[in-house]
Amino acid sequence: MNNNLGRKLASLAMALVFSGSVVAQEPITPIEPVKEINLAKVELGKKLFFDPRLSKSGFISCNSCHNLSMGGTDNLKTSIGHNWQQGPINSPTVLNSSMNVAQFWDGRAADLKEQAGGPIANPGEMAFTHTLAIDVLESIPEYVTEFTQVFGPDCINIDQVTEAIAEFEKTLVTPNSRFDQWLLGNADAITKHELAGYKLFKESGCVACHMGPAVGGTSFHKMGLVAPYETKNEAQGLAGVTGQDADRFKFKVPTLRNVELTYPYFHDGEAATLTEAVDIMGRLQLARKFEESELDQIVAFLNTLTGDQPSFALPMLPPSTDKTPRPTPFE
Amino acid sequence: MNNNLGRKLASLAMALVFSGSVVAQEPITPIEPVKEINLAKVELGKKLFFDPRLSKSGFISCNSCHNLSMGGTDNLKTSIGHNWQQGPINSPTVLNSSMNVAQFWDGRAADLKEQAGGPIANPGEMAFTHTLAIDVLESIPEYVTEFTQVFGPDCINIDQVTEAIAEFEKTLVTPNSRFDQWLLGNADAITKHELAGYKLFKESGCVACHMGPAVGGTSFHKMGLVAPYETKNEAQGLAGVTGQDADRFKFKVPTLRNVELTYPYFHDGEAATLTEAVDIMGRLQLARKFEESELDQIVAFLNTLTGDQPSFALPMLPPSTDKTPRPTPFE
Repeated sequence: MNNNLGRKLASLAMALVFSGSVVAQEPITPIEPVKEINLAKVELGKKLFFDPRLSKSGFISCNSCHNLSMGGTDNLKTSIGHNWQQGPINSPTVLNSSMNVAQFWDGRAADLKEQAGGPIANPGEMAFTHTLAIDVLESIPEYVTEFTQVFGPDCINIDQVTEAIAEFEKTLVTPNSRFDQWLLGNADAITKHELAGYKLFKESGCVACHMGPAVGGTSFHKMGLVAPYETKNEAQGLAGVTGQDADRFKFKVPTLRNVELTYPYFHDGEAATLTEAVDIMGRLQLARKFEESELDQIVAFLNTLTGDQPSFALPMLPPSTDKTPRPTPFE
Repeated sequence: MNNNLGRKLASLAMALVFSGSVVAQEPITPIEPVKEINLAKVELGKKLFFDPRLSKSGFISCNSCHNLSMGGTDNLKTSIGHNWQQGPINSPTVLNSSMNVAQFWDGRAADLKEQAGGPIANPGEMAFTHTLAIDVLESIPEYVTEFTQVFGPDCINIDQVTEAIAEFEKTLVTPNSRFDQWLLGNADAITKHELAGYKLFKESGCVACHMGPAVGGTSFHKMGLVAPYETKNEAQGLAGVTGQDADRFKFKVPTLRNVELTYPYFHDGEAATLTEAVDIMGRLQLARKFEESELDQIVAFLNTLTGDQPSFALPMLPPSTDKTPRPTPFE
C-alpha cells in the first residue's frame, strides 16, 4: 500500500469514527474547516479583494461582484462592469470556490489564482491592466511592506497579487450548515420535510452532478440535457475553451452551498427563484416534472445548505500616496 | 445658574482635570467617544448602509461612495452614480459627520437622518424611490423582524430607514489620533516637525475655519475668499439653498479628520494631493503663499489627524425572498 492511499484510508476511517458512519454513506459530504493557510497572505489577499484601486475606475473591487455580504455574489442576472457595461454571464459565488474543479462557468481558469487575474484586466469588468494595477500597489508603502513580508523583497508582481487573493478566497468556506450538522450525526438538525427533500434530491438524480462537499463544482454538464434550454444568453460554455462542438452549452455544475443566498440562478441568471430553478432542472436535465409539493421539499432541503458565512472585520485599505496613479473612471 | 449651564461647566472642569488643561487652550479638541447609542438601531443601520438593494440597480450602497475601507469616501474627484453617471460633487467623508453643523457641501440637509434619504432617491446616485426601497425591505422577513424590534410593529417607513442609517453613522467617529493623544497630554505622540506644522496651522489662520473636534464642519465659507477659485464645477454652494447671491461658492468647511485618507480634496475633488490643497487654501483663503518647507510641516501635522477607523465585522445581509422586487440595473 503506498503512503498516499494509506493516509486516505486512515482519514476515511477517522471520518467514520467521527461521524458515526453517516458521512461515508451520503453523496454529499460536510465542508471541512480550512487548514494550512498562510495568514499573512490571507490578510494581504483580503485587502486586495476589497480594493477598488485594482480597477481603472477606482470603483470596482472583487467584492463588487462577489459581495461577501450577499453570499459572495452580486445577486444580479449578469454583472455590472466598467462604465456600467452589462456582463455576459452570472457572477458565480466565491464561497467554497476552492472546491471547484476549475474556475469560471466554462472552466477556463484552472484554479483561483488563475481566475483572480481575469476580471482585473477584462475590459468589460475592472478594465485595468496588470501593469497598471502593479504600479498602483508599488506606490503604496504599506502594500510594499506587506508584499515584502509575504513574498520577500522582490518587486510586486501580478502572480503575487493573484496568489494572495486566492489564499484569501481559500478561507471563504461555509461549514456548519444545518445539513452538515445532520451529516455529522445530529438527527434533529433538519426537519422531516427537509429530509424528504434530500431523499427526493438523491432519488431523482440531482446528486449525479450536485455531490461532494460543495454539492457541485466538480464536473461539466450540458445545460438542457433532455430538452433544450431556451436563452438569449450567448455563452457557449466549455466549447469556448476546448473548441469541441460537443462541449457547446456544457457549463460547470455550480455549487449548491448557500444557494439560498446566490439568486438568481443559472449561467444566464434567468431563474429568479430557487423553485423555478429546481423545476427547470427537473424538466431539462432529468426529464422529470416535479409536483409543487416536491419542489417545496427540495427547496426546503436546499435552504439547509446555508453555512456559516465568513466573518471578519471590514479591511482598512492603506491610503494612496502623492505618487499613486489616480483612477480614471470617466476617460 | 440653570441646570444646563451647570452641567456644561462641570464637564469643562472635568475636561481640564483630565487633560492637564491642554484641551481647553487649543482650538482643536479631541474626538469624544460615542455615547448614548441604540445598539440594535446601529446594527440595523449598518446593514442598510451596506445594502445595495436600496438602489435601483442593486449595485450601489451607501458604502459605495462612502467606503469605510477608504476613510468613508470613494477617493474619486466626483462619484459614480446609477448607469455610471458622473456625480456633480466630491463625496464628503461619512467619518465624524455627526459633528457637522449640517450635511452635504451646501448644507441642504439639517442632519444625518435627513441626508440619508437623499442619495437613495437621487436619479444620479442610487436612482431608486423611497417607496420602492421600502417595498424591498418589507419583503425580507429578517428586516421586518429587525425593524419591529427597533421601531415597534408598524410598517417599515423611510423615516425609520434613515434614522437607523444615521444611528450607525453616529458610531463612525475616529478617536485616538496621534494629535488627540497629544491634546490629551502625551507630549511624545507627535514629532517636533508635526508640532511646528500645527503651530503654523494656527498662526496662519487655518483654525479660523478648521477648529473644534472635527477640525471643520461647523461653518460655511466662500471658496476663494481673497482670490477667485477657478473650477469647471458648477456647484453654487449655500446659494442653492438660501437663494442669496452672497452665498455663492460658500461651502461647508470640510472636516480635516482623517484627511490623509479622504483625497482628492475640495468640493470639486480637483486637488489631488494634500500639499496642493494646503497651498491653494493658503493663497486663496489666507492670502499667504506657504513655502515648501511650511507646506511640509502643515501636511505632516494634518497626517496626525488620522484616528482609529471604525472596526466591525462585515455585515451579512438578509437574503431576498421570492417576493422581493428584483433590481433593474439595465432598464
